[in-house]
Amino acid sequence: MTAEILTIGDEILRGEILDSNKAFLSERLLSLDIETRFHVSVGDDRQDMSEAFRRAAERSAVVLVSGGLGPTRDDLTLEVLAETFGHDLVLDEASLETLRAFFRRFGREMAEVNAKQAYFPTSSEILPNPIGTAPGCLLEESGTLFFCLPGVPSELHRMMDEQVLPRLSRRLGEREGVVRSSLMRTFGVGESNLEEMLRDVATEPGVALGFRTSFPDNLLRPLARAKSVEEAESRLESLRAVIRKRLGALLYAESEADTLERVVVRHLTEAKRTLATAESCTGGWLAERISSVPGASAIFRGGAVAYSNESKTALLDVAPSLLESHGAVSAPVAQAMADGARTRFGADLAVATTGISGPSGGSDTKPVGLVYLALSDGRTTRVEEFVFPFDRERHRQLTSQVALEWIRRALLGLALELPRWGRRTS
Amino acid sequence: MTAEILTIGDEILRGEILDSNKAFLSERLLSLDIETRFHVSVGDDRQDMSEAFRRAAERSAVVLVSGGLGPTRDDLTLEVLAETFGHDLVLDEASLETLRAFFRRFGREMAEVNAKQAYFPTSSEILPNPIGTAPGCLLEESGTLFFCLPGVPSELHRMMDEQVLPRLSRRLGEREGVVRSSLMRTFGVGESNLEEMLRDVATEPGVALGFRTSFPDNLLRPLARAKSVEEAESRLESLRAVIRKRLGALLYAESEADTLERVVVRHLTEAKRTLATAESCTGGWLAERISSVPGASAIFRGGAVAYSNESKTALLDVAPSLLESHGAVSAPVAQAMADGARTRFGADLAVATTGISGPSGGSDTKPVGLVYLALSDGRTTRVEEFVFPFDRERHRQLTSQVALEWIRRALLGLALELPRWGRRTS
Repeated sequence: MTAEILTIGDEILRGEILDSNKAFLSERLLSLDIETRFHVSVGDDRQDMSEAFRRAAERSAVVLVSGGLGPTRDDLTLEVLAETFGHDLVLDEASLETLRAFFRRFGREMAEVNAKQAYFPTSSEILPNPIGTAPGCLLEESGTLFFCLPGVPSELHRMMDEQVLPRLSRRLGEREGVVRSSLMRTFGVGESNLEEMLRDVATEPGVALGFRTSFPDNLLRPLARAKSVEEAESRLESLRAVIRKRLGALLYAESEADTLERVVVRHLTEAKRTLATAESCTGGWLAERISSVPGASAIFRGGAVAYSNESKTALLDVAPSLLESHGAVSAPVAQAMADGARTRFGADLAVATTGISGPSGGSDTKPVGLVYLALSDGRTTRVEEFVFPFDRERHRQLTSQVALEWIRRALLGLALELPRWGRRTS
Repeated sequence: MTAEILTIGDEILRGEILDSNKAFLSERLLSLDIETRFHVSVGDDRQDMSEAFRRAAERSAVVLVSGGLGPTRDDLTLEVLAETFGHDLVLDEASLETLRAFFRRFGREMAEVNAKQAYFPTSSEILPNPIGTAPGCLLEESGTLFFCLPGVPSELHRMMDEQVLPRLSRRLGEREGVVRSSLMRTFGVGESNLEEMLRDVATEPGVALGFRTSFPDNLLRPLARAKSVEEAESRLESLRAVIRKRLGALLYAESEADTLERVVVRHLTEAKRTLATAESCTGGWLAERISSVPGASAIFRGGAVAYSNESKTALLDVAPSLLESHGAVSAPVAQAMADGARTRFGADLAVATTGISGPSGGSDTKPVGLVYLALSDGRTTRVEEFVFPFDRERHRQLTSQVALEWIRRALLGLALELPRWGRRTS
């Protein structure tokens, strides 16, 4: 079963928006082991849309169409789809009532133009949209399934998972068996090492393992196929258990949404421990990531962005003599920053970063890319040196990721060593 | 002249990368007033690629192809393009020598597999790649121009501007006249108001004005067309001068790359003034944006992320009585935070944010979305209340943008009032 994704809208063709729907839909299709063969985008143009529908029907078994379901004159998807395959558009009374109710909930009268969104091609199946005004629909045309979905990402995401994937899974199950898959997030190991570590875990028939890099993480997609849901789920769980055991601390989450900052905030909340940050080179990025998680205020006391030497002393009590003898980018200063932040903010844990993110500012003994990380928990203060050979943005991103990973590992009682990144060898 | 963009690579079809090349290329084509009619992606598959080339030749005058120029067996673009249109691949000795020199510069021997990148379809024009190993090429096939470019964004961007656009501009110039355009960034006014303000500025023939929203900014693309380069440039400059005068302080930059943080860091550097930040709701985002600009350390003293009440007192000397009587989200606390940051960091200017970004934490008198901003310059401390009705991420993003805009306006001696966002009316 091969798929095609067709997104519709002038704004895409003008480059005004980054069309992330295509990548999302392709990745979700892979969760059922369905490969996407074509991505196509056309503007709000009848002829181009109609041609794209016809080509898709000729060459693809599944076509996911996104966009063009709105109430305006430019929104032509269902009209052109119906016309292309010789259908009429017919009013669905139930959808019209849902639409009217949607507007009533916001104390508004529905404009008559919106009634358009309650018309669907004859013989299509209506797909409810629980968070927007535009329902989708499924039209089967000479063996090709056309799923029409809204272009708004939040509505599209929900309808893909709730309406499209279950239908595809059912149809695939009848033909090729049930597929179950999940996503696992790893940090601290390179893709080739990861592949080497897991080379023998998905070799039997009925299971597979996909790899993907999303800097600075590497993601895994274990997948299992079987005759029944129970069997597929149990096969997937066995595969996941093997991976979990093999990777140990390198695996930090088992879902796409669980970013490292979310995992860290959750662990801190569960352990009822508070955190403070002391940042030099990361410049606030670490604090920003932690505070981006809803509810972070319960565990995050705050942070200092101590960019200048004076501020390291004024805000974090770093002794001027330490700065003078070792320099701002040094192990003793990182250590003093973490200790100072823990004390000043009255937090249980504090983490500090100081480094040279570039592009300039390096020297022979302290090259661009050098960074020191420290973690203080009140008993000990651990400090380590790294060299991250990346541009300014990735250097800051990776430094904040290692800092979060240290917090996670400290909370779980795991070793802080990261096999992939280490001390200078010289 | 209509264009089509064709990107090639399995990683795109698997949704592993967000294919931003298509949006970039379309937007750059618009700078010559060339509209993109189709976006297509196919995997590294000979048959699919060949079919895509043939369809593009039938329907488009310009085809930009990105990806598949690497040295591996999967990189098939030029091979399949040549085959599709009955050409051979021939070795270009000069490109081979450039390739060898490229490897020598890094002290390495060129692997023989890389020689592949010096073969091009007969009768194609080679487009040099100054920063990578894969040159591009231009093949004209029965009236259609195929520009083949690398998939690596940095190489693609540079070759689009240095190789593709000048050639297209020359060909267009012969047919339809020379086009010049630029980008202007505005903040603080809604798109419909902006359109209203500029309704009459691009009405004569030969000029046009495009609008695009990129939250929280609105961008303008003025464009001029004429018989000669000089005339097009002078027409564009006249249009820009009218816009500049009409928008005044609402216009903050005149290029895509000039983000507000870059503009602010530049103004601070020129004025030799230093900055500190005191953040509650923005959680470090403001400091992160400022410190993301290379060279920011010369003007950025640092910032405090004072998430808890205790840290507002410990780091910024906010009086506990103030917090008790007014609450952390209040005008007096914002003011005290800005004053405290300026003094503690020894900076010329300090800006403070305190608000409720949501999704929870609001009350009847202090709803979700409420935020106070303060700016202290040592003589006065200005404070203002805003309500930004957006989700957590956009609330934090907009708050940090307004803070940066206040700094910019203060440095230029402009009024701080932003027509679009204001105080609660109740």
